[in-house]
Amino acid sequence: MSTAKHVTRFRVRYSEVDRMGAAYNSRALEWFEAARVELLRAVGLAYDWMEQQGAHLPVVEAHLEYLSRAGFDDELEMTATASMPGKASVRFDIVVADAATGREVVRGYTLHAITDKTGKCLRPPKWLSDALAGDGP
Amino acid sequence: MSTAKHVTRFRVRYSEVDRMGAAYNSRALEWFEAARVELLRAVGLAYDWMEQQGAHLPVVEAHLEYLSRAGFDDELEMTATASMPGKASVRFDIVVADAATGREVVRGYTLHAITDKTGKCLRPPKWLSDALAGDGP
Amino acid sequence: MSTAKHVTRFRVRYSEVDRMGAAYNSRALEWFEAARVELLRAVGLAYDWMEQQGAHLPVVEAHLEYLSRAGFDDELEMTATASMPGKASVRFDIVVADAATGREVVRGYTLHAITDKTGKCLRPPKWLSDALAGDGP
Amino acid sequence: MSTAKHVTRFRVRYSEVDRMGAAYNSRALEWFEAARVELLRAVGLAYDWMEQQGAHLPVVEAHLEYLSRAGFDDELEMTATASMPGKASVRFDIVVADAATGREVVRGYTLHAITDKTGKCLRPPKWLSDALAGDGP
Repeated sequence: MSTAKHVTRFRVRYSEVDRMGAAYNSRALEWFEAARVELLRAVGLAYDWMEQQGAHLPVVEAHLEYLSRAGFDDELEMTATASMPGKASVRFDIVVADAATGREVVRGYTLHAITDKTGKCLRPPKWLSDALAGDGP
Repeated sequence: MSTAKHVTRFRVRYSEVDRMGAAYNSRALEWFEAARVELLRAVGLAYDWMEQQGAHLPVVEAHLEYLSRAGFDDELEMTATASMPGKASVRFDIVVADAATGREVVRGYTLHAITDKTGKCLRPPKWLSDALAGDGP
Repeated sequence: MSTAKHVTRFRVRYSEVDRMGAAYNSRALEWFEAARVELLRAVGLAYDWMEQQGAHLPVVEAHLEYLSRAGFDDELEMTATASMPGKASVRFDIVVADAATGREVVRGYTLHAITDKTGKCLRPPKWLSDALAGDGP
Repeated sequence: MSTAKHVTRFRVRYSEVDRMGAAYNSRALEWFEAARVELLRAVGLAYDWMEQQGAHLPVVEAHLEYLSRAGFDDELEMTATASMPGKASVRFDIVVADAATGREVVRGYTLHAITDKTGKCLRPPKWLSDALAGDGP
């Protein structure tokens, strides 16, 4: 099974750093979201367009392992891959590492249902599987 | 002109504190919102009910003066007063102080338009002026 | 093995709600932190006091299952239990439910190392195991 | 008096958007901070380096005018200028506009004291005035 993959860079904001001088743990879930949005954009799926098609991807599960500290203004690199386990959900695996040294900061995944606006599960649209598979014709 | 007034207490969360050990500046605007919601509830105006009536109160201006630091787990007391300057907008003045010592932490105001769902200005509903005036019959 | 347990209530803030009208996923990790702080306070361990003793509890792993939506102003009830798996780390299991209906919103855990200020692992202090065990004399 | 000026671009994150579909008001203060950090970096003043010199710039006042809504994934452009009113404080004026249309979203300023680590006011360091004045020899 092939998967879509995307890399994003950003700097840790002062507002994201806690009293210990390290990025606060919940911020990783905001970064993961930014990684998902950029990966989807890269395979041609603007999030707004998807919602206009009536397809939503609410998070149903998240898992995070905090491996080392990231401080204010550190430049981080996120590598995201997307897959469709069981064909009925979407999973994003994400690794955030220090851009300068490669040291891993946090890794984890989010698992998403595919639903309509009201939260009812949908059969996965073909355009979604096609885009995430990255399969050419 | 009489005004509605309300007092709320809360503790500073670890996630709200920055590298200097003090509550991060943008958090004050989240606290102000909590103060507004509780003041409105106290005068009988649940925010959801107001939106169901078609009345929204988007922030059009905010001003903050940071007077002293609040650290993690400090108990703070917010005093909010509401008024309707010029009758066409709502203003909340808020003072946040240390609950134990009375030392002021931040003070300021937010000014709100009264609009429909699309952002178009509304004539202020009578139930809003009545509730905020605190005038009994 | 006995465990410490604590229940906290709070309301979902407007600032925590996303475009879908539901509390944004990363906010659950901020709530979990508030639950930990209150549980520790309830067993006599103020977080500041612990840090003054030189003991820190950085999050090394987090897991979350999102079970239903929580909207603005919903009153939620968090039940937190603490345990010390393998005696060298602390785990908080947390369930967040709608206070009115009992419907579960999110559940999960955070796993914490016990370290000094620099992040070096410590032998768990006796006061910590005693407080979390909840064992009386 | 000449002033330093800098332009930054970014996209609105899903986590920053509220139930009305617009960026939540407190987020503007986080954006302002990112604009300050980038302006200072552009004139040769890394924030960490400044703190190592013993100079801190805590926010003492903030003012914001919300002019139009910014939605999820909108690309915004921030223009920041820095000045030193009265020579004893630093002021950043910031305009955030839609990058595609130029429509202004929010404008305002933050005023900063110049202090040591403990919050005591400092005489402004010459390297700070020089860098912000942008005066060549």
